Amino acid sequence: MNQFEFYSPTKVLFGKGVETKVGAEIKAWGGSRVLVHFGGESARKSGLLDRVEASLNAAGIAFVTLGGVVPNPRLGLVKEGIELCRRENVDFILAVGGGSVIDSAKGIALGVKYDGDVWDLYDGISEPTGSLPTANIVTLAAAGSETSEHTVLTNENGAIKRGYGHPLCRPKFTLMDPELTYTLPPYQTACGITDIMMHTLDRYFSPGGCNEMTDRIAEEVLKTVIQFGKVAMKDPTNYDARSEIMWAGSLSHNDLTGLGRIGDWAPHQLEHELSGYYDVSHGAGLAAVWGAWARYVYKADIMRFARYGVNVFGLALNYKNPEETALQAICATEEYFSSIGMPITITELIGKKIPDEVIAEIAEKCTFFGRRTIGGLVVLDKPKIVDIYTAAR
Amino acid sequence: MNQFEFYSPTKVLFGKGVETKVGAEIKAWGGSRVLVHFGGESARKSGLLDRVEASLNAAGIAFVTLGGVVPNPRLGLVKEGIELCRRENVDFILAVGGGSVIDSAKGIALGVKYDGDVWDLYDGISEPTGSLPTANIVTLAAAGSETSEHTVLTNENGAIKRGYGHPLCRPKFTLMDPELTYTLPPYQTACGITDIMMHTLDRYFSPGGCNEMTDRIAEEVLKTVIQFGKVAMKDPTNYDARSEIMWAGSLSHNDLTGLGRIGDWAPHQLEHELSGYYDVSHGAGLAAVWGAWARYVYKADIMRFARYGVNVFGLALNYKNPEETALQAICATEEYFSSIGMPITITELIGKKIPDEVIAEIAEKCTFFGRRTIGGLVVLDKPKIVDIYTAAR
Repeated sequence: MNQFEFYSPTKVLFGKGVETKVGAEIKAWGGSRVLVHFGGESARKSGLLDRVEASLNAAGIAFVTLGGVVPNPRLGLVKEGIELCRRENVDFILAVGGGSVIDSAKGIALGVKYDGDVWDLYDGISEPTGSLPTANIVTLAAAGSETSEHTVLTNENGAIKRGYGHPLCRPKFTLMDPELTYTLPPYQTACGITDIMMHTLDRYFSPGGCNEMTDRIAEEVLKTVIQFGKVAMKDPTNYDARSEIMWAGSLSHNDLTGLGRIGDWAPHQLEHELSGYYDVSHGAGLAAVWGAWARYVYKADIMRFARYGVNVFGLALNYKNPEETALQAICATEEYFSSIGMPITITELIGKKIPDEVIAEIAEKCTFFGRRTIGGLVVLDKPKIVDIYTAAR
Repeated sequence: MNQFEFYSPTKVLFGKGVETKVGAEIKAWGGSRVLVHFGGESARKSGLLDRVEASLNAAGIAFVTLGGVVPNPRLGLVKEGIELCRRENVDFILAVGGGSVIDSAKGIALGVKYDGDVWDLYDGISEPTGSLPTANIVTLAAAGSETSEHTVLTNENGAIKRGYGHPLCRPKFTLMDPELTYTLPPYQTACGITDIMMHTLDRYFSPGGCNEMTDRIAEEVLKTVIQFGKVAMKDPTNYDARSEIMWAGSLSHNDLTGLGRIGDWAPHQLEHELSGYYDVSHGAGLAAVWGAWARYVYKADIMRFARYGVNVFGLALNYKNPEETALQAICATEEYFSSIGMPITITELIGKKIPDEVIAEIAEKCTFFGRRTIGGLVVLDKPKIVDIYTAAR
């Protein structure tokens, strides 16, 4: 095991009906005036928000609400939330939703304690000065944001999507009721499955020495999501499947599957530009670029791709030609994505051929306008990024 | 996944030389007057305590020291530590050692904030009223106490050993440098390997439905410890082996390998009485009773013991007679224990035949003098406990 730090202090309450404990938990964490942050009206129509508000009332906790979070959550709503929290003296933020809502809540929580424009943090030009405590009720197994230190926002001004990570962003607690994910449409379920897989894959395919304990947990997270993902696609109210996927989703992004490794994250960064530009689902965008990325970089560590094929997909290792197994593993991943209805090219993702000039534009954005390269297994500059987008076309 | 709570907030710093960060970390956690708690003089002779004290001095942190913790740590020293902390206005406790030192530190930390006799907590007749913050520098991969909420003490008055668990007992941070375990004698290394395995086995063999994510992590923890345990026994300064064992040791007892399951813990409780009475090593005591326990209970879930054999030891499942595979799995475990020099009978453990009257006495203690049964896979009362001790003889 290489050097690492691991800090995942978020308390998890998991199982049927845990959302009814939210009032008591917030009280135990010292919250007294809460912002309840959510997405669309489905949270109200399903009765979930009513149950949440009943639990808050029962605990004697005051609250205000702010809905309207959309996929690829927007900076504009975050700024609205910051103003609302300051005006209402909010001291605790509860996100009710999936990764977009949780990420938006984290942005608000940072922004309330920050004097300048909260985008400075996402843009990497400033440091946070505190955060309101946050917690969440998860309604979508995907982002893993419920236990992670990460948040991703889109700045409408320029359609720029940026991820940010800081220990201050770790939620105090998360309430995970797998039954809340029963009503997800198949496409969203599949996007979630892909996102979960990619949080581990982007850690797994990276430079690193002997980190067996980490690699083995990573492989089991992948196998579990792949197996139960198939079940959930066919049988959306299968509790076993929904619950295994949901817990795997948290483990996949609480850092456990990457300890001792550096993390590559190029596929995530390639995708952020796609969904920032075309406003597509993050999970679908990941599926659309991963294969092209993998074929571009696999020669940097053929045996790792081969191991992945053997341990995750049960392929037989070709000892005479492990490269064949490595390529089979990439195919197996794409076949799995296709089998759950995910696109494996950008054309499938956006429904048309991506123009050369858009590739040039998002490749430029992906380098932060020339301020960075991406990737670790292979370091990618703008020409290489253009190559991969083109290959994924 | 069944209902569960998971809360493992301890920050982990892992790798070569991390112990030199102790001063800065304690300062960041708000400590200013520290009790440095340790075991024998080896911590001084090895230079470790000097490095720790230099780091504390560099951070401007005052400290007092209390050594003398022995395996199966004693209530008497804990009480001495409580007095010392109160007298010196200590606000943070640093354990430098293995599970015994960490457990003793947790006992002191609880006791400083408790008005009565701290043994009340271990005896289950009272609730804690707070705890000083603790942290640790781990020198022995075994107990997993570095990230767990558990502490075990022995009350010299009656040779009673009791475990206690409470969220207040979670250390704030742990510094894990695998090189600090290079000098452990082979017997202690083997006891640690066994203890790590048993923290997962006591969770794995228990009642429970579909908890695949948990079970798969449990199996990988076991496989990793078994594989690298063999390496460390032959090559004590093998960094890969020592580091994999050390990290597996924490994961094995931070609750991750039992989420959604109830936990059986009968082997641990059977062992506590043995080491409480004979003052033997905990790991060795576990190896001595596990086989007899497993043969006594395996019929309650034959397929689970068979799965264990297949997934952990690579046995072929006998589809016509899975019981054969289950029994082979128990044998494989005992063979592994023997291969690393652990006893697999009580006679091997204590060097003589355990008398019937001692069995009767410790079986009575094991039921808390008639106040409890133990175990979950099979519930064990005093006659059954006597049967297992006798079978393990």
